Amino acid sequence: MSGGANGGFFRSRWIEPPTGIEELEPTTLAPGFRGAGVACGLKPSGGTDVGILACDVATVRSALLLTRNAAAAAPIRVCRERCDQGALRAVVVNSGNANAATGEQGYADAIAMQERAASALGCEPERVAVAETGTIGVPLDMSLVIGGIDETAAALRPDGGADFAAAIMTTDRWPKRCAIRAGGVTISAQAKGAGMIEPGFATMLCFVQTDAVVPDLAAALRRAVNASFERITVDGQMSTNDTVMLQASGAAEAELPEGLLDAVLLQLALEIVADGEGATRTGRVEVSGAAEAAEAERVAREIANSPLVKTALFGRDPNWGRIAQAAGKALAGEDVGELGPERISFEELGGEAREAEIAIDLGRGEERAHVYFSDLTHEYVTLNAEYTT
Amino acid sequence: MSGGANGGFFRSRWIEPPTGIEELEPTTLAPGFRGAGVACGLKPSGGTDVGILACDVATVRSALLLTRNAAAAAPIRVCRERCDQGALRAVVVNSGNANAATGEQGYADAIAMQERAASALGCEPERVAVAETGTIGVPLDMSLVIGGIDETAAALRPDGGADFAAAIMTTDRWPKRCAIRAGGVTISAQAKGAGMIEPGFATMLCFVQTDAVVPDLAAALRRAVNASFERITVDGQMSTNDTVMLQASGAAEAELPEGLLDAVLLQLALEIVADGEGATRTGRVEVSGAAEAAEAERVAREIANSPLVKTALFGRDPNWGRIAQAAGKALAGEDVGELGPERISFEELGGEAREAEIAIDLGRGEERAHVYFSDLTHEYVTLNAEYTT
Repeated sequence: MSGGANGGFFRSRWIEPPTGIEELEPTTLAPGFRGAGVACGLKPSGGTDVGILACDVATVRSALLLTRNAAAAAPIRVCRERCDQGALRAVVVNSGNANAATGEQGYADAIAMQERAASALGCEPERVAVAETGTIGVPLDMSLVIGGIDETAAALRPDGGADFAAAIMTTDRWPKRCAIRAGGVTISAQAKGAGMIEPGFATMLCFVQTDAVVPDLAAALRRAVNASFERITVDGQMSTNDTVMLQASGAAEAELPEGLLDAVLLQLALEIVADGEGATRTGRVEVSGAAEAAEAERVAREIANSPLVKTALFGRDPNWGRIAQAAGKALAGEDVGELGPERISFEELGGEAREAEIAIDLGRGEERAHVYFSDLTHEYVTLNAEYTT
Repeated sequence: MSGGANGGFFRSRWIEPPTGIEELEPTTLAPGFRGAGVACGLKPSGGTDVGILACDVATVRSALLLTRNAAAAAPIRVCRERCDQGALRAVVVNSGNANAATGEQGYADAIAMQERAASALGCEPERVAVAETGTIGVPLDMSLVIGGIDETAAALRPDGGADFAAAIMTTDRWPKRCAIRAGGVTISAQAKGAGMIEPGFATMLCFVQTDAVVPDLAAALRRAVNASFERITVDGQMSTNDTVMLQASGAAEAELPEGLLDAVLLQLALEIVADGEGATRTGRVEVSGAAEAAEAERVAREIANSPLVKTALFGRDPNWGRIAQAAGKALAGEDVGELGPERISFEELGGEAREAEIAIDLGRGEERAHVYFSDLTHEYVTLNAEYTT
């Protein structure tokens, strides 16, 4: 329930950001970037629902990671098939309609969004990414969207970071964003998570801008995402629309401080968990002593997604039996002997802290893995059961 | 909430039992079998907590299936290591303590239970299976258990089926049992499910007795279990103690009617789902059009275990987007195009029926799979979060 109001950006016990960081106003974007958000009418609430984030530096480099869901939404297919993923100037987002399971018309609509934004920005369509989130299976009202894109493009400002961050939210309880200066460069980022009361897919979006030079953008983004968004789970589900985009203009002629991108993405990922549907607490499960890396990963995910473990986190119950059960299930068919309390530890699971740690030692080898997860609460059931189509 | 009171034993729309069936009194056991249950004091409630089921025919044949959980409980290890699984005369059960994660003492205690029951019954220890369910990580009070075994053995009766069925229950809302006569043979069965408010593992137990001749018991049991207990999920968890046992005395000198064993096990399995923690409705998801059998299975389980689908079942929300999402996750990394409403159907998901059907056609091939599952409700969260150790 905390969020941005609650002190500095790096609030998790699990993050050690680099030293020498200066936090900037939340409206700030990295130099050379502009953003904006407007309400075009897609959201019944009247909230802002179209956002554009654009770089003024023509030589900007980028990297893009997209959902692996086999039933990907139209904007994902447009990004895969019609974008120059290494040289994106801008992204256009709507947060009222996921444009998923909308058939050929949906695909054409996503292309039309890309082309309209490119035209308004004066760049090639393949240099504009498209991201969408919201209801699924509903045709886009393109007259609203097109008007919204024109209006947003006209409103772009260097201090448009907060407006853009707000325009990509769906049911998030708080915006997830940062603007940080360190080592002579600036990094700004905006994310949204999986708060979902619309009858659709939860979608995770994240956009990161910097004026730093990032020598291998794709590798840097892959590494940071592997340690952040790939390590979280709210309900074990996978969206049709997930998108993470990094843009680096290089204008500052300096590199990002070591570890900064990783710290920013991890904090944003943890905020998505903390703001998961109905979530009240975040857990981190650390599996050690696995025979192989894949085994450690499998056990960690089984524990993090176990409804018994997630309700125990909600109930502040250091219930090692449920941890042992989930680990034993992940290793079904093998014999690990007994996973008793001497192999399983808790930190603050019984206390008032919003972040609780679980550790289990399988005693089979040297490999480790960890996963961050939210609790399973009455509010989760209410959100997902009491809303009907 | 229905259960045995609600008409005949075969109540599910998904079962077509063989014709010519006569249902017997619920106390009845197949001829040649005796059962009993007593309260030895393990359960704080004072309910019956020790049960024995034994066959008087020395040539009885049997088959046993045990959990594959890698952290199996002591009685599972005793059954694996110290039982003649093809010639079991009896099973001794306690339903107050799972004897899981209890170390070497727990293993010794399970052996002592086996030996005491064998002594009381006058047979070899390796012909007695041991099954336990209840709290975990707590040492067994063997003085209570030993007394309970002696008392139960002395109370064995041919009409002890209902007493035995009651003695294996933990938090089940109703007993799961049947006694059926068909084609000149009798089959009786008792099961318990995964109602769990103790801080421990849910455990599924099922015992089946018949005086029929069953030529290949192990294969018959494997086939029936594959189509019943292996096709259900309450919360995607796997117990440390699951046990299914079939005994056939052969005294009737006739074979089981085709399909009867399968129908009995499927009805019992569906009762376990219907009586799952907090459950109000049972769903059946049928996946067709998969490229391979394993793919169909993976998609069906992903849908059945999706908390979004399970809350939709609770909320009576025919939400095809959540089905599509879960299927797309199961096929992550592939491209199935869009899984829209033309590929997904519901039957009675929006109505008042306690059994609802979901079907999805992946359009990739000819393989199919189905899974039965319970809904995810407030009561599930209450049961698992509000009880603390």
